[in-house]
Amino acid sequence: MNSNFADRMGSVHKSFIREILKVTQDPSIISFGGGLPNPASFPVLEISQAAEAVLRESGEDALQYSTTEGYRPLREIIAQRYARRGLKVSPDDILITSGSQQGIDLTGKVFINKGDRVLVERPTYLATLQAYGLYEPQFRSIPLMEDGPDLAALERELDAGVKMYYAVPNFQNPTGITYSRRKRQDVARLLNDYGVVFVEDDPYGEIRFMGEDLPPVKSMTENSVLLGSFSKIVSPGMRLGWLVAPPEIMDKVIVAKQATDLHTNYFIQRVVHRYMADNDVDAHIGKIKALYREQRDAMVAAIGRHFPEGVQCTKPEGGMFLWVTLPEGFSSVELFDTAIKERVAFVPGRAFFADGSGDNTLRLNYTNSTAGAIEAGIERLGNAIRRQLAGSACVVR
Amino acid sequence: MNSNFADRMGSVHKSFIREILKVTQDPSIISFGGGLPNPASFPVLEISQAAEAVLRESGEDALQYSTTEGYRPLREIIAQRYARRGLKVSPDDILITSGSQQGIDLTGKVFINKGDRVLVERPTYLATLQAYGLYEPQFRSIPLMEDGPDLAALERELDAGVKMYYAVPNFQNPTGITYSRRKRQDVARLLNDYGVVFVEDDPYGEIRFMGEDLPPVKSMTENSVLLGSFSKIVSPGMRLGWLVAPPEIMDKVIVAKQATDLHTNYFIQRVVHRYMADNDVDAHIGKIKALYREQRDAMVAAIGRHFPEGVQCTKPEGGMFLWVTLPEGFSSVELFDTAIKERVAFVPGRAFFADGSGDNTLRLNYTNSTAGAIEAGIERLGNAIRRQLAGSACVVR
Repeated sequence: MNSNFADRMGSVHKSFIREILKVTQDPSIISFGGGLPNPASFPVLEISQAAEAVLRESGEDALQYSTTEGYRPLREIIAQRYARRGLKVSPDDILITSGSQQGIDLTGKVFINKGDRVLVERPTYLATLQAYGLYEPQFRSIPLMEDGPDLAALERELDAGVKMYYAVPNFQNPTGITYSRRKRQDVARLLNDYGVVFVEDDPYGEIRFMGEDLPPVKSMTENSVLLGSFSKIVSPGMRLGWLVAPPEIMDKVIVAKQATDLHTNYFIQRVVHRYMADNDVDAHIGKIKALYREQRDAMVAAIGRHFPEGVQCTKPEGGMFLWVTLPEGFSSVELFDTAIKERVAFVPGRAFFADGSGDNTLRLNYTNSTAGAIEAGIERLGNAIRRQLAGSACVVR
Repeated sequence: MNSNFADRMGSVHKSFIREILKVTQDPSIISFGGGLPNPASFPVLEISQAAEAVLRESGEDALQYSTTEGYRPLREIIAQRYARRGLKVSPDDILITSGSQQGIDLTGKVFINKGDRVLVERPTYLATLQAYGLYEPQFRSIPLMEDGPDLAALERELDAGVKMYYAVPNFQNPTGITYSRRKRQDVARLLNDYGVVFVEDDPYGEIRFMGEDLPPVKSMTENSVLLGSFSKIVSPGMRLGWLVAPPEIMDKVIVAKQATDLHTNYFIQRVVHRYMADNDVDAHIGKIKALYREQRDAMVAAIGRHFPEGVQCTKPEGGMFLWVTLPEGFSSVELFDTAIKERVAFVPGRAFFADGSGDNTLRLNYTNSTAGAIEAGIERLGNAIRRQLAGSACVVR
């Protein structure tokens, strides 16, 4: 067989996370590796009622082909929810996607030429490196601080010339870091000054369980694309997200979306619209927040009890992830092997760094484990870390 | 605003069909333009029952993230159905896609470098020109005869060097043409000899209402990708299809699929699996075939009554489309304007030709109109054709 693949396929490999998750199928392993929402938060009964109603009332329409942009009443609900978060958009500026991951792919398709300099955070969302990677850009990255990106580094990169900036300003995957209001304004100002497109990926924005809600950066810069998702507020398995863009960009996105898969599952758009219209979604999201806050608190407290000194962690105000930094010189890939022997798993941080750094970091997910599993798993991980630190020539205090 | 789009977006425009369909929203116009299945064929009640059962029995799982390859029991059912059609495949060789359109996009992503020579039929499926077009190949095309491609032309193109061959061997969109058994064997032999990958797009294969079932070309050439769809046998709005490929190609497809949208809607995979498992799908498909045969017969008979001499039509043995060829020198784009005045619409054929030819052709869909509408619409279209032919200096007999 002579399968002559495109050059873009040469540099990419199966997801490291995906391979790791296979290792952790073993039920005796407590896994903080995946990025799964808590299934207890899924509105199963309400979705069932919505599906029944949609099919009973307009089944033939709901099962037919539909428009590339998506079901307009669903786009109207999305626009209304943004208005409450300080962002004014028209339903015309919204396109329904197959999860926000497809929004990432579509922005790559629409903007990236081979060799273009694409700016991301350090670390950044792994699957964006994969999606954009297939369009063969040159990745550039800027350090992430507690309140958002290093502005001096951002300005240096903008000076050197970049095509676009991709970021997750709320409860970032993998770090849990959120941009402060001031950083949002500064980032927007810089991007506006340099005329650089911003891709603002916001799958976790509605899952803030502490602190003050902050407006999307899109409300401060017109030349941007905002990606949203129903994955964390309704169901991830449905693969339903959206993309917000001004008309000039939307025209191109529609062409790309149509070529890619014609339109997003229309039946599910109808079902989720019906679910949103018939239920108190804010109350539902409130329950998710309470649940995740409790799980985050449990993990932070367990870390306090079980991790040795010299190991640093973020304390996210929302979202699903917590970021751990080992002392310099220690490798989380090596720790992974020790941890598996202790029957606990996580994602080594290196995969989230466009520049291959970050060897001493790791990501923990707290939303898909019980309080007992969090306590036991963090104790095991603490033991693994101690063993690794003790086994090293480099003594850490 | 300074939106600096990727080069690949420069050459593409919104779908011509999409723009045409907007014109035909007017309810007084009888449209044979769309490519819609008959909604009377949708198993609305059975899908509702399947959705209820899946959510009741395994709701939390069905709404969670899932694997990139897709729900294995659904892939098993697909493999079993292929076995009956003369193709032996393992569920491991099947990946679930967001409609077969996504299968087209994924094969473009995996195989096409900018400038690669990609071979298609003349005419070919319009949305493939759009999907592949974004990977910037050089399209080459070979004429389609009554029983499949012109083999001498195929060999000439293979001699000149091509990266891949894309075709729709069953009841092609737009022509309705089907490859004969002999042509399948000859095409497979040539592709094998030249080591060229075949992308076999087969969304209509199960909708044969006349003649003998023929095995997929994939059963004769290993180095190929076969695309299938639930759109024509269950529901198009669900955007559920699949891709069959040998392991070497599948490895790359999985990477591309994961980067593109992680996985296909898992809830819908579960629902369609349940629907397929709990119902007599063959009886359901039998009803669709009977319905479409009746509609095709109605259109063919009406054409016999109302079209002037010198106009040629295909008589498809399955699928959804019929292809009309006007005498040389006449333009279906001009006819479109006349036809709209007569309150009837179709798709001018030119958009289906990679080389910009085919100005005297047009596509008619017969699956989404009642018998009355087919009779009245074809009469109107016959009048429009007569007016155009009469108005021409070139007299046709």
